[in-house]
Amino acid sequence: MYHNRIKSLIFNMKNLGIKNLLVSDPISIDYLIAYHTAPGERLLLLNINQNGQLKLYLNRLFPAFDNQTLASAVEVYHYSDGEPVLYLVADHLLDGPTGIDKNWPSHFLLDLMAIADNLKPVKGSHLIDSLRSIKSSEEQTIMANASAKNDQAMEAIFKLIEQGLPEDKMVEHLANIYVELDCEGFSFEPIIAYGANGADPHHETNQDQPQLGDSVVIDIGSYYQGYASDMTRTVFYGQPDEESLTIYNTVRAANEAAIAMIKPGVKFSDIDLTARRIIEKAGYGPNFTHRLGHSIGREVHEAGDVSQHNHDKVEVGNVFSIEPGIYIPGKIGVRIEDLVIVTESGCKVLNSVSKEPLIFHPKSL
Amino acid sequence: MYHNRIKSLIFNMKNLGIKNLLVSDPISIDYLIAYHTAPGERLLLLNINQNGQLKLYLNRLFPAFDNQTLASAVEVYHYSDGEPVLYLVADHLLDGPTGIDKNWPSHFLLDLMAIADNLKPVKGSHLIDSLRSIKSSEEQTIMANASAKNDQAMEAIFKLIEQGLPEDKMVEHLANIYVELDCEGFSFEPIIAYGANGADPHHETNQDQPQLGDSVVIDIGSYYQGYASDMTRTVFYGQPDEESLTIYNTVRAANEAAIAMIKPGVKFSDIDLTARRIIEKAGYGPNFTHRLGHSIGREVHEAGDVSQHNHDKVEVGNVFSIEPGIYIPGKIGVRIEDLVIVTESGCKVLNSVSKEPLIFHPKSL
Repeated sequence: MYHNRIKSLIFNMKNLGIKNLLVSDPISIDYLIAYHTAPGERLLLLNINQNGQLKLYLNRLFPAFDNQTLASAVEVYHYSDGEPVLYLVADHLLDGPTGIDKNWPSHFLLDLMAIADNLKPVKGSHLIDSLRSIKSSEEQTIMANASAKNDQAMEAIFKLIEQGLPEDKMVEHLANIYVELDCEGFSFEPIIAYGANGADPHHETNQDQPQLGDSVVIDIGSYYQGYASDMTRTVFYGQPDEESLTIYNTVRAANEAAIAMIKPGVKFSDIDLTARRIIEKAGYGPNFTHRLGHSIGREVHEAGDVSQHNHDKVEVGNVFSIEPGIYIPGKIGVRIEDLVIVTESGCKVLNSVSKEPLIFHPKSL
Repeated sequence: MYHNRIKSLIFNMKNLGIKNLLVSDPISIDYLIAYHTAPGERLLLLNINQNGQLKLYLNRLFPAFDNQTLASAVEVYHYSDGEPVLYLVADHLLDGPTGIDKNWPSHFLLDLMAIADNLKPVKGSHLIDSLRSIKSSEEQTIMANASAKNDQAMEAIFKLIEQGLPEDKMVEHLANIYVELDCEGFSFEPIIAYGANGADPHHETNQDQPQLGDSVVIDIGSYYQGYASDMTRTVFYGQPDEESLTIYNTVRAANEAAIAMIKPGVKFSDIDLTARRIIEKAGYGPNFTHRLGHSIGREVHEAGDVSQHNHDKVEVGNVFSIEPGIYIPGKIGVRIEDLVIVTESGCKVLNSVSKEPLIFHPKSL
């Protein structure tokens, strides 16, 4: 599988005239050669050149590279703290444009520019991001399983709603639920927000308990087999008022209309627009304050979002979220989010938890 | 206080011929103009030029800049997602070398280089790091208070040792202890490691309980009023064997000898060497596997370490850790760490918790 990823990458490098690609993102390195470490402030670099040579620069404090499948293809260069490893990197560069990873700390780039005065640095992450955005069938299976786990977690949280626990207690329960589901921890700080808290984009889970009629925004995800899940449901604690239900149904309609139009060739921006128009038509346009969604995979946010600014067309194998929301400050927040995989004929929705407006009544103790 | 910091910075910029300094590190920005936000992937930039102009580029989603003291000195430029803010940054640059923050993501730098073709980017963080490394008397007071809190936390942990709780339970208690002390959370993932766990540099706190004779490495710190604390004590759970006590006394001697020699003008590398020689002489040289210490302040690790590679001389107002250790894989780990502030005549040790070998006996239940 990984040999194919590298082959595609080099094919794209040739097309774009990129002679060398310096990959520093630990997740991209793992994606390409199945080696993972958290380098902290130390240099970790995979140099891929157009001739198909792969060189990995590893601090001696990092774990060894021991990928049997790729061992013959990757040359490993060990260095110690204080050793001028960038001279080695510079020596190994082919003449010509060199792709630089988007988040490589500038001091490495500046040092390399000073050594390799013919370095022609250009932005390089998009080469890998575009590969990562098309999930293979193996990846799709893992992501479907990750979301199935997340569905189970959501149902488990539902069972607790009627107990009226404070937000932070719910999050504690959620952590245990993911452990029981063999998940690898939160993929982002979960949001469980009651009533007006759900309308505050900066709300941090606190000790608030739900009041009768409150909406409950539940935006949760975990890692499973290295891939992220992410979904949101909004339910009610006790009977909501009419406007709350109107808001709920508007968000649901936006979510469903967006999902219904997804197929290869449709623009991300048009998907956003479709959801946005429904919310605008209902009079809540200014209350939908964010993009419709984001790509997801090894990371919970990957390159490529579902927004008014992204005019790219969706492709088979893209995985992203559809998450319209309406937020009335001081009153209520509603968001409904699913993950979808683009297929030949449309899309597959990875979440199956009901989108009916669910009302949980507090347990009488 | 902040006006002085900016004045010193501009003085240093002039000395070094740096025309503009692009500051992206949120903590450095806060250090200079008392504005803090966590920008995520969005651009946050403070541009300081030699003429004393300060320009702050803020995404509209970030909190407002409302520092009354500096409001007249800082020009604020708001931008929205998708707006080409770097063109504005480029327009505002004075001709000449431009200092770049060490961790600024490369894609910003590459974009700016493409727009401002006369940009002469050079590394710039050291200008601020060198300021931050000299703590003012206000900062010294806060750091002394932060370490006094940490001493209290250590004493509180000591009280729990005889209960033989698992490592992870101890960390839970520690979190609560810091809350009660009005601290702002851990400054790093705390280490409470029993016996051989303390010798494993990659050990993560787990459910292990102490065995009789075990060493207990307790490496803890929190934030207090925005400044980090960090200290280590090693104690024993039940009577240790002779070798364990020898190791303990060797580490203690190294800690105390290093501290005794600190005064302005002494090289960081010589302080490291002094501690290292004591450990080598006792036959444990290969078991002291890390540098002697690190600078600390707003962050738990700041620029400038106490290592064989750092030949800089210590200056009045430097704050750093002294933390020799001996690690015998599979058997024991011992580390003793204090923070010190360099004074005119020597140094002030910020931690007062006893360094006698403390032996706690399990409570008979």
